[in-house]
Amino acid sequence: MVIVLKNNYDKAQLDRLTSWIKEMNIEPHFTYGATQTILGLVGDTSKIDVDMLGALDIVESIKRVSEPYKKANRKFHPEDTVIELENGTKIGRGNMMVMAGPCSIESEEQLTAIAEAVKKSGANVLRGGAFKPRTSPYAFQGMREDGLELLIKVKKITGLPVVTEIMDYEHLPLFKDVDIIQVGARNMQNFELLKHLGRCDKPILLKRGLSSTLEELLMSAEYIMSEGNERIILCERGIRTFETATRNTLDISAVPLLHQMTHLPVVIDPSHATGKSSLVPSMALAGIVAGADGLIIEVHNNPTKALCDGAQSLTPEQFDELSKRINEVKKVAYR
Amino acid sequence: MVIVLKNNYDKAQLDRLTSWIKEMNIEPHFTYGATQTILGLVGDTSKIDVDMLGALDIVESIKRVSEPYKKANRKFHPEDTVIELENGTKIGRGNMMVMAGPCSIESEEQLTAIAEAVKKSGANVLRGGAFKPRTSPYAFQGMREDGLELLIKVKKITGLPVVTEIMDYEHLPLFKDVDIIQVGARNMQNFELLKHLGRCDKPILLKRGLSSTLEELLMSAEYIMSEGNERIILCERGIRTFETATRNTLDISAVPLLHQMTHLPVVIDPSHATGKSSLVPSMALAGIVAGADGLIIEVHNNPTKALCDGAQSLTPEQFDELSKRINEVKKVAYR
Amino acid sequence: MVIVLKNNYDKAQLDRLTSWIKEMNIEPHFTYGATQTILGLVGDTSKIDVDMLGALDIVESIKRVSEPYKKANRKFHPEDTVIELENGTKIGRGNMMVMAGPCSIESEEQLTAIAEAVKKSGANVLRGGAFKPRTSPYAFQGMREDGLELLIKVKKITGLPVVTEIMDYEHLPLFKDVDIIQVGARNMQNFELLKHLGRCDKPILLKRGLSSTLEELLMSAEYIMSEGNERIILCERGIRTFETATRNTLDISAVPLLHQMTHLPVVIDPSHATGKSSLVPSMALAGIVAGADGLIIEVHNNPTKALCDGAQSLTPEQFDELSKRINEVKKVAYR
Amino acid sequence: MVIVLKNNYDKAQLDRLTSWIKEMNIEPHFTYGATQTILGLVGDTSKIDVDMLGALDIVESIKRVSEPYKKANRKFHPEDTVIELENGTKIGRGNMMVMAGPCSIESEEQLTAIAEAVKKSGANVLRGGAFKPRTSPYAFQGMREDGLELLIKVKKITGLPVVTEIMDYEHLPLFKDVDIIQVGARNMQNFELLKHLGRCDKPILLKRGLSSTLEELLMSAEYIMSEGNERIILCERGIRTFETATRNTLDISAVPLLHQMTHLPVVIDPSHATGKSSLVPSMALAGIVAGADGLIIEVHNNPTKALCDGAQSLTPEQFDELSKRINEVKKVAYR
Repeated sequence: MVIVLKNNYDKAQLDRLTSWIKEMNIEPHFTYGATQTILGLVGDTSKIDVDMLGALDIVESIKRVSEPYKKANRKFHPEDTVIELENGTKIGRGNMMVMAGPCSIESEEQLTAIAEAVKKSGANVLRGGAFKPRTSPYAFQGMREDGLELLIKVKKITGLPVVTEIMDYEHLPLFKDVDIIQVGARNMQNFELLKHLGRCDKPILLKRGLSSTLEELLMSAEYIMSEGNERIILCERGIRTFETATRNTLDISAVPLLHQMTHLPVVIDPSHATGKSSLVPSMALAGIVAGADGLIIEVHNNPTKALCDGAQSLTPEQFDELSKRINEVKKVAYR
Repeated sequence: MVIVLKNNYDKAQLDRLTSWIKEMNIEPHFTYGATQTILGLVGDTSKIDVDMLGALDIVESIKRVSEPYKKANRKFHPEDTVIELENGTKIGRGNMMVMAGPCSIESEEQLTAIAEAVKKSGANVLRGGAFKPRTSPYAFQGMREDGLELLIKVKKITGLPVVTEIMDYEHLPLFKDVDIIQVGARNMQNFELLKHLGRCDKPILLKRGLSSTLEELLMSAEYIMSEGNERIILCERGIRTFETATRNTLDISAVPLLHQMTHLPVVIDPSHATGKSSLVPSMALAGIVAGADGLIIEVHNNPTKALCDGAQSLTPEQFDELSKRINEVKKVAYR
Repeated sequence: MVIVLKNNYDKAQLDRLTSWIKEMNIEPHFTYGATQTILGLVGDTSKIDVDMLGALDIVESIKRVSEPYKKANRKFHPEDTVIELENGTKIGRGNMMVMAGPCSIESEEQLTAIAEAVKKSGANVLRGGAFKPRTSPYAFQGMREDGLELLIKVKKITGLPVVTEIMDYEHLPLFKDVDIIQVGARNMQNFELLKHLGRCDKPILLKRGLSSTLEELLMSAEYIMSEGNERIILCERGIRTFETATRNTLDISAVPLLHQMTHLPVVIDPSHATGKSSLVPSMALAGIVAGADGLIIEVHNNPTKALCDGAQSLTPEQFDELSKRINEVKKVAYR
Repeated sequence: MVIVLKNNYDKAQLDRLTSWIKEMNIEPHFTYGATQTILGLVGDTSKIDVDMLGALDIVESIKRVSEPYKKANRKFHPEDTVIELENGTKIGRGNMMVMAGPCSIESEEQLTAIAEAVKKSGANVLRGGAFKPRTSPYAFQGMREDGLELLIKVKKITGLPVVTEIMDYEHLPLFKDVDIIQVGARNMQNFELLKHLGRCDKPILLKRGLSSTLEELLMSAEYIMSEGNERIILCERGIRTFETATRNTLDISAVPLLHQMTHLPVVIDPSHATGKSSLVPSMALAGIVAGADGLIIEVHNNPTKALCDGAQSLTPEQFDELSKRINEVKKVAYR
C-alpha cells in the first residue's frame, strides 16, 4: 500500500500515523520528494481500513498495490479450480458447463419438454427460475416453492443437474436437492445471504452486479469463501452503461481478465445481458472463444400459445443449432 | 402502452395478440402507417408483462406511456406525504429532517458525544451504523447487536430519534425501538427484505441503488407500500458513473424530479455520495436549495486518536457551521 | 412517431399542433384513452424536430418508432456493403480486413520492420499514427507530416495499403496517398470534419465515441454519407463505463447489432478498448466469432530499447500467433 | 509518481528502467516488500509517458501522485482567476456572470425580444447559437454566418456582450466581435480547435464533454492555456450516465471540486444538462449555492406560434422569476 501525504502535513499527525501503522506490524518506508512525501507500506495491509486511513487530514491519497481478495486470488492459487457436481458433471480447467432452460418455471409439461430438448442438444445442467426477482411487485414473482418441486421432479426424470436462484437464505432447506445455487445480480452484495451460502455445501453461481467492478465481484466471492464454501462459479451477465440498444452491455473482456485474477470458473449469461435472442448465439460463441468455462442460456418453448417466441429466449431449435456451433468453437477457444 | 409491430408481421399472430389483449379488458387502437403499424392500448395495462409482450415475434418495440408505480405516484396522490416520528418530528411538506451522526457506532462515549453535539447544532435525528455492509469480509462489520443497544441507550439519553440500517429482516425484532429503518443502496432491490419491511409499522429510509434509475427506486418503494407500509423516505446518495474524482456522482436533479414523480419525502446523503468531507457542505446546501426535505450527514469525533478527521465525515464544528448555513438556505429554497 | 399528450392538454394547443403536423403532410391518428391520449404519426417524420416537438406544453413524451438514419440503414439497403481498396483488398460480405501496426510512427526502421512482420503474418493493411490526439498538450503529438511521409514510403516498400488518423480537414491534401482515413473516437461528432470527409473519395474508418450510442455512431456515418461518400467502415473501440480494470469496455454485442442496423462493414479495435496486450488476442477472436469484418491491432517492436513490450501493443511474435488463430476462428464465425 | 513492479521482475529490465528514469533527472526510491517492490519517483515527472511506462513487462501498475495539469492548477496559482469582458463585465472571485438567450438564433425579432427581456431581468451576457452541432445531418444546422451577424447586431442594440459556439477554427474571423467563444461538449477534445483558440485573445467557454473526467476537462483547458490564452471559463453541462429520466446528469459536485483543482471560473448549464425546463430553476440555484461563478440558461420566446414553450428553455417570465431567486441565493452561496 502506498500513502501519499499532503504537502504541508503536520509532523505530530505523521508520528501518530506512523506508530499506528507499526502497531499493526507494518513497516512504513518513506520517499521524501520535492513536492511529495510517499509512504510505502510493507507487510499484510489487508487489515488496514482504507477509508479510515483516507480520513486522515495529512493523507492526500492512498494507492492499494495488492488485491484485497485472498482465497479467490490466482496469485495464491495458480491452479484452475474444478467444480464437480454430484452426477460427475465438471466445470473448470477445460470442462465446459452449459446451463439451459426457461427463465421461469411455468408447468411440468413446459419444464420437462424444454429439459429433454436441451439435454438432447448437449446441455449438461438445467436452469429454471422458481423465485423470480422482479422490479415490480405487481409482476409474476415465480412459482416459488411449487416451482422448486417441479424442478427437482424434472431433475429426476431427465437426470440433469439443476441450477436455480435463491433470494432468501430462509429458503435454503428447500434447495437441498438443487445442484447449483444461483445468486442474482441484485443480490451480489447481499452480504448476509452470501455468508449463509458460505456455510452450505453447494456450488454457488455468483452473478456480477449490474454496476459491480470485477474486484467487487471477487470480494463477494470472498465473502462466501471466507465462510468455508470455495465452490464458486462466477458469471458475467452484462453491466449497466449508457447504451440502450441492448438491455445491458456484456463485458466479455471480464472472462480473460477474471481468469488472470482468479482460479474460479467463469461463465457468461448472454440471454440476460443482451435481452435480445438474436444476439445470444454470437455473444455465447464470443464468450467461449474468449475462454469462458460455460454458459447459461434461456431456452423457451410454449406450443400452447405463441406468446413467448422471442426476446432473450431461444427456441429449442435455435439452441440446438447454437450447441453445434459451441462444439466447433470450443476447439479453437483461447487459453 | 404503445406497441410497434414489425413491418412484415404475421396476421394470425396479430389476431392471437389482439385477443390476448382483449382478454385483459384492454382496448387496442390501430394506426396503420406506410412503414409502421402501431397499437395504442387503452385501459389498465399495469398487469401486462412487458418482457413477455416484447417477446412476440411480431413486436418490434413497446413504449410504455404510463408509470408502473401506483401508490408512490404523485398523479394519484397530489398531496405531499408527511411522515411523523413518535416524538413528533416531521418530514415532508416543508418539514425538514436533518439526520446526523457517525458512520459506525464505536462506543457509548463516542456516540453520546456526537449525539449531543449534533443535537445542539440542530440535527433532529441521530444516525449511526450498527450493521455495516462492507465490500470486504475482512473489514469491520460494525458492532451489530451491541451497536443497536448503544444507539437506543443514547436515544434515551439525548431524546433524539434514531435511524440505522437493517441488512437482514431476521434482525427486525432488534429494531423495535429504532425510529427509522434504513435500507442501504446495495439492498434497494433485495425484494424479500422490502416485503418484510412493508409489513412493519416503521418509517423506512430507502436509499437509491448505485446504478438504479429513479423509476426503479420508486418500484422498490412500491414493494414496501404494496405490503401496507406507506411511510417511506427516499434518499439520493450518489450514482456510479465513469467519474472517479468523487466516490459517486450525487444526482441532485433527482430531488426536484422525484418531487414531480412522487408524493414521498426526498433527502440526500452528500457524505456517501462524494466521499469527501470538503464537498459535503456545498452539496448539502445544493440539495436543500433544490427542494430536499432533509439530509443525512456523517459527523465524526474522536478525541482519543486523530485518525478520523477527514474523508466523508464532518467534525462537530464543521457540522455546526453547516447547520447555520442550512437555516439560511432553507428560506430561499426552491418550491 | 408516437406523441403522448399530457392528461389535461389544452384543446387550442392541440389544434395548433395538429395543423402544424398536417402542414408537413403527416397524418395524425388519435387514440383516446381513459388516462392518455396518443397521436400516431404516419408519413415521413424524419423532418420533424423532436426536441421542438418535445418542447410543447401539451406533450408528455415522444416515442420515435423509425430510425433517423437512412443511407446507413439496412432496411433500405439489405445487401452488405463491400469496400474495395486501390490494390483490390476488400472488406465486407465475408472479406476480412486485418489492420496492424504501431500506435505511433517513430522511424522508418521501426515502421518498415513492423510492416514487413505483420504483412508476413497476414495483415492486409498497415496502421500507423502520424497525427496523435493526446489528452495532454505536453505529451508527444506524433510525427505529423513527417510521419505521413514515412507511412507512404513504407506503403510503397511493402505494398501494404495504409490507414491513419486525421484530426483536421485542413490536412486532407496530405492524405492523398492514404488508403483509409481514420476518424478517432474523440472526433466522431466533429461534424465539420465529417462533412469534409463526405466530400472526399476515400474509405473512412469511423470509430465509435467513448460514450456514443450505436445510433449516434450511425448518425455520424450518415453525416459522411449525406455528403456523397458512402464507403465507411465502422469501428467498435470500447465505451467508457464505471469499470476501471480495463481502459474501456469493449462492447462486442455492437458487432452483431450493427450488422442488423446497417449494411456497412464493422471492425473492432481490441488494443485501445482493453489497454492490455494480454487481453487483445481473446477479444480479437471474440470479435471475429461475433461476425466482425475485420480488426485493427497495435503491434510494436523496438529492439533498440526494451521499453515498449506490453500495454496494449502486441509483439510481432504475438501477432503472428494471433493471426494463426484468427484464420481458424474465421471458419466457425457467426453469420 | 509511484511504480509498482511485478513480483517476478527481471533484474536487467529494472536496470534499463532505472537508467531511463535517471536520464530524465528523476530520482527513483525503492521500497522492497515481501510481496511487492515499489518505486517512488521524485522530480518533474510530467514528461514521463505513463502509457509507455505502463507498457513495461516488469511494471504491474503506475500511480500518479501529482496532477498532469500545470497552468490550470490551483496549487501553482492559488488566486481565483477573474476574467473581464470588453464592456467591463467580470466573472470569478465573486463576480457572477449570467448568460441567457435562445438555443438557436432564428430571427432578428426573436433575438432582440429575448435579449431585451433577459437584460431587463439581469442577465449580463447574451447567448445564442449560430453554428449548431446536431446529431443528425438532416436537422437544422443553425443560421451560421447570418446568425452570427444578427447576434452582433443585437449586441450593438442592447449593449449585451455575446457568447456563441464555434465548431471550426476556420470560422474564427467571423467571431471577431464575439465576446466569449464557446467550445461545445462534443469538441472538448478537438485538440486542433483548442490549439487555435489558444492563440486568439478571446475568453473561451469550455464545456465538459459528455463522458469526460474533470481531469480531462482541465487537460483540455491546458491545451488552450499552453498556447497562451489563459482566459478560460469552465462549464459543467451534465455527464452521460445510465439514468434516462434526465437528458444527462448534472454533476454539481464538479463546481466545488473544480474550485479546489483550478483557479479558473466555473459555470453550469442546467438547460442542456437536464433537458427539462421544469428542472432548470432548481438546478441553477443548486449550482449557485455550490459556488458556481455563473450560469448559462436557455430562454425562448415565440409569440407567433406556441411551439416552443417547454423542453429545456425557460420563458422570459420564468427567467425573470429565476433571476430574482438567484440574487437571494447568491447571498448565502457557499465559499
